[in-house]
Amino acid sequence: MFKKVTIIGPGLIGASIGMALRTRKLAAQVVGVGRRKASLDNALKVGALDKATLDLKEGVQKAELVVLATPISTIVEMVPRLPEMLDAEALLTDVASAKVRVIEVVSSAMRFRPDVSYIPSHPMAGSEKSGALAASADLFVGAVCILTPLTNTFPESKGRITQMWRELGARVVSMTPQAHDRLVARISHVPHLAAAALLANLEESEMALCGAGLKDTTRIAGGDADLWLDICRENREEVRAALEAYIALLRKTADSLRTSDLGPLRDLLQNARDKRDKLLGAAEGPRPPRQ
Amino acid sequence: MFKKVTIIGPGLIGASIGMALRTRKLAAQVVGVGRRKASLDNALKVGALDKATLDLKEGVQKAELVVLATPISTIVEMVPRLPEMLDAEALLTDVASAKVRVIEVVSSAMRFRPDVSYIPSHPMAGSEKSGALAASADLFVGAVCILTPLTNTFPESKGRITQMWRELGARVVSMTPQAHDRLVARISHVPHLAAAALLANLEESEMALCGAGLKDTTRIAGGDADLWLDICRENREEVRAALEAYIALLRKTADSLRTSDLGPLRDLLQNARDKRDKLLGAAEGPRPPRQ
Repeated sequence: MFKKVTIIGPGLIGASIGMALRTRKLAAQVVGVGRRKASLDNALKVGALDKATLDLKEGVQKAELVVLATPISTIVEMVPRLPEMLDAEALLTDVASAKVRVIEVVSSAMRFRPDVSYIPSHPMAGSEKSGALAASADLFVGAVCILTPLTNTFPESKGRITQMWRELGARVVSMTPQAHDRLVARISHVPHLAAAALLANLEESEMALCGAGLKDTTRIAGGDADLWLDICRENREEVRAALEAYIALLRKTADSLRTSDLGPLRDLLQNARDKRDKLLGAAEGPRPPRQ
Repeated sequence: MFKKVTIIGPGLIGASIGMALRTRKLAAQVVGVGRRKASLDNALKVGALDKATLDLKEGVQKAELVVLATPISTIVEMVPRLPEMLDAEALLTDVASAKVRVIEVVSSAMRFRPDVSYIPSHPMAGSEKSGALAASADLFVGAVCILTPLTNTFPESKGRITQMWRELGARVVSMTPQAHDRLVARISHVPHLAAAALLANLEESEMALCGAGLKDTTRIAGGDADLWLDICRENREEVRAALEAYIALLRKTADSLRTSDLGPLRDLLQNARDKRDKLLGAAEGPRPPRQ
């Protein structure tokens, strides 16, 4: 499918893409670019890469597809150097969890390279673990991958990126970057903060008495703190709006307990119960319409 | 260990106790008392009971141990009829998730039966499923069971109940009813409300795009709404206090996003990350001191 694919930042997501491409023989060569030799060695060890380099220019040279898989703050630092290095008509994508800001930065850097097609993507897969050692060739199987194509994205380029994610097992959905950022604030970033706050409020002495329920509820809060700070920072406005809506519902619930008018509490519990059935049903039910 | 054990309300917890006792041969006879024949039939079907009856008096007659395993609101209704039915020197326990209120009601009903030993217990095990069909003989293996003995509990009676839970695989811990209610508000009831509020705030159209993370985070919110309304009602003051503390931390986080002073957000994420390690470590580490 591709001759050379370069993955900048072969961590959990980047190395999983490499493993998935290599396992499925979708790329003749997968090259990883990183800033620490130890991380690249891990990515090589798990079979995510054919070759690794610390040199960005060497890494992206003649790449047909370049995947930006570093934290957003690293993309911001690194991307101004890319335009002069990319091959003619290269495809460029990223896997960032917040899109508006990343698109602003990458599009701006690429403004004098109209031959390069940039198609932002966000594979909604992951783990509370990080790093190439936690990578898996099947990380994207059954996951949703959201594309946020730009107005100037070539349809053919969008088609190729869509095809790649499908080959990796993902369900591909398209939306605007704004809709994406609002959605993930609600279904991913605020749940992360909610789980983190549950844990942060506990005393150490209480930990030994927690059941399986709390372990599941707070699993996502085991994620890398710096990475999540980065995500919340880059999607700050939407995260704040979604967090305010969440706080408002909890406030209503606390007031319900205070005034002994338990109607709102009952509604909350019943609504959640119904939504939970839908959440499980949605996962097992029909796929969303293809784009 | 026991001749006759009677389980009033053989649902998920009650039927699991029955299965666990029978599988381990800890009771010569396990009798279930319920209000609906269909529920009792399910409990018989899964092997939780030797015998089932709709008649409370018949059910508890000559029982050495009686387990109150109905929702708290049903205990409140039913318990005034018990004192005249219980055998001399019977052991009585319950499995309610909120203790202060249940103890008040049961102790008051039992005040003219000083020969009956009441040792409240709370096995912290369960599932988002309910009913006897979801029961398991190993539900309590590795779970924490909190006893909240009363000042007039006979040490020998406490010893027998402790021994029973240990035989069923639980780690037994003792504390006051007040300490229990405060603890479970923080480690169980508020996490439930937090998960419910995450789900309740989502649009149906967003459901299809949710990842595995949200499914884990909200698993507990799949629990029976009436049961949880009951629990929150009976532990209202502690749940409200714990919910206010949770809201305060989220408020601080939202303010951190608003003012762009990301220090508090960073602290939250890092604190949660550290606590998560401790939570997992605690689960696998040494057991708490035996009582």
